[in-house]
Amino acid sequence: MMRNRQIVLANRPHAVPASSDFKIVEAVLPPLTDGEFVVRHEYLALAPSARLRMTETPGYPRTAIGEVVSGHAVGRIVDSRNDRFKIGQYVHVSNAGWQELSIRNGDGIECVDVDAFSPSMWLGILGGSGNTAYVGMLEIGRPKPNDVVVVSAASGAVGSVAGQIARLCGGHVVGITGGQEKCSYVRGELQFDECIDYKASTFSEDLKRVCRTGVDIYYDNVGGFVRDSVFELMKVGSRIVVCGSISEYAPASEASGPSWMPILVKEISIKGFRLASYADLRPNFLRDVTNWMRQGKIKAPREFITKGFENTPSAFIAMLEGGKIGKSIVDLT
Amino acid sequence: MMRNRQIVLANRPHAVPASSDFKIVEAVLPPLTDGEFVVRHEYLALAPSARLRMTETPGYPRTAIGEVVSGHAVGRIVDSRNDRFKIGQYVHVSNAGWQELSIRNGDGIECVDVDAFSPSMWLGILGGSGNTAYVGMLEIGRPKPNDVVVVSAASGAVGSVAGQIARLCGGHVVGITGGQEKCSYVRGELQFDECIDYKASTFSEDLKRVCRTGVDIYYDNVGGFVRDSVFELMKVGSRIVVCGSISEYAPASEASGPSWMPILVKEISIKGFRLASYADLRPNFLRDVTNWMRQGKIKAPREFITKGFENTPSAFIAMLEGGKIGKSIVDLT
Repeated sequence: MMRNRQIVLANRPHAVPASSDFKIVEAVLPPLTDGEFVVRHEYLALAPSARLRMTETPGYPRTAIGEVVSGHAVGRIVDSRNDRFKIGQYVHVSNAGWQELSIRNGDGIECVDVDAFSPSMWLGILGGSGNTAYVGMLEIGRPKPNDVVVVSAASGAVGSVAGQIARLCGGHVVGITGGQEKCSYVRGELQFDECIDYKASTFSEDLKRVCRTGVDIYYDNVGGFVRDSVFELMKVGSRIVVCGSISEYAPASEASGPSWMPILVKEISIKGFRLASYADLRPNFLRDVTNWMRQGKIKAPREFITKGFENTPSAFIAMLEGGKIGKSIVDLT
Repeated sequence: MMRNRQIVLANRPHAVPASSDFKIVEAVLPPLTDGEFVVRHEYLALAPSARLRMTETPGYPRTAIGEVVSGHAVGRIVDSRNDRFKIGQYVHVSNAGWQELSIRNGDGIECVDVDAFSPSMWLGILGGSGNTAYVGMLEIGRPKPNDVVVVSAASGAVGSVAGQIARLCGGHVVGITGGQEKCSYVRGELQFDECIDYKASTFSEDLKRVCRTGVDIYYDNVGGFVRDSVFELMKVGSRIVVCGSISEYAPASEASGPSWMPILVKEISIKGFRLASYADLRPNFLRDVTNWMRQGKIKAPREFITKGFENTPSAFIAMLEGGKIGKSIVDLT
């Protein structure tokens, strides 16, 4: 008889969630039926998209009140009635949820090699956030040599990889992030050509200065005034990848976007995307990104690791508040 | 010695232009040099894009104060020192401008068959507006059978053709236009499946009712609140063709667009375009549209013809005010 702790949504948050919007519940795992196995989660990935599911967003899946909060996990199989998934095997569990254990039948399960790359890397650069960056930049952005590519939330789990991929394609990459520490990380460790601090009073002039010839590709993770500032600088025939809109995930803010006139006169292309629609690219992604990592061409984002299952909500809140660099992960070991 | 009358921009208009924003000037044509010829314009095409050039629109060509107002024309060669262009030949003159005569060397000149199609048709369905509809709907919108396709300014020169092309592709086509007379025209003569009156107090409910399952393609000619209403109804993976934004051409209105959240969560693609970037498609366009016309599969939009060169500004103003159905043309014969 295995006990499972779960974190469920207690209330729909308004802006940034509060700890009281979450509740820890305990449940006993039912016995396995044929084909099922149990994964003990060792690491949980925190992602802003979980916030999006906490409110009524038309067209987007929603977490019900009382439902386990969504997120991916990496863990080890601790019990199995499935010949393809043996006890001891490490796996990535899609939509594992914020819980300690999950019962699965193989759907959404990927075996991972934790000798080659750490378990937490399978949640970051080799997980959803790296995969998102790969799809968004290569399939939708499609940077060419010398393209000016702007990436917002550049020190985050997606932005850091998206920008590095654009550099590999020969782009001139400009990051946007908040604060000097993050800017130094993006310029120094991640080797972006430039990085601009959106919290600086000189933000829009700084951006214009480093994008003097205009912007070919904007990889948008944030929406809001940062997006609007970059939007003014788009070149004729330029492209915007709408990957995230973290500044607008709180329904309190009745967001509006910029005028569409530049879309017309500059023939701008804009495309929103969600990773789920590009599952067929996962093998290419794994092949390319692991090669680039082995060749030292790309760096995994830093990890901000929080110990302890019960600290998951506070780590999630800290991530949404933008204080952390890189990928936020909860360590349950 | 040939006298040429021209209409030049006298002032930058604020919202809808006034007659006083234009001025008629007279000039004597210089003698022809080798390779040049003179076209006497018989018909001038009026297009909303001329309005866009009258204000400072970043990234868009601008008409200077004192410069001839832009527009295409069809006319006859009346003098020539170019062996390829003989006196008597009918030609379409790109960027002919609002004037009676133009001197050209062959650039931007297309010989037209006025026995097969009337001269004014070469300015409408076979000219820039038909070509724009063809490119925008087929290259960018790409309707598939049973797609719900919404077209704004449906009774206009571009919208009327765009909607008919979508129907030929098997789309379920919903027009939007202003007033019952135009709606009847769109439903009756143009055979759109539905047409909604944006001036009706029930507009947004009417739109929701006829697009109950959502919108696959929105062909936007108008921007503003009509665009925002359709935007709410877009399906996951849907596409928006930004062809025009006539409600936002007046700089007085500080337009803003809708929130970009639906672009993200519904993976919407948006692309602005200008016909000038698709010149290579002109032969395909002419082949397809003339075939469709001969087979009775597509109807030329109605023409709203104004007699007399000096009435060009007032006809242009009437067109921008939205009172007329179909293509606005000035007859100089």
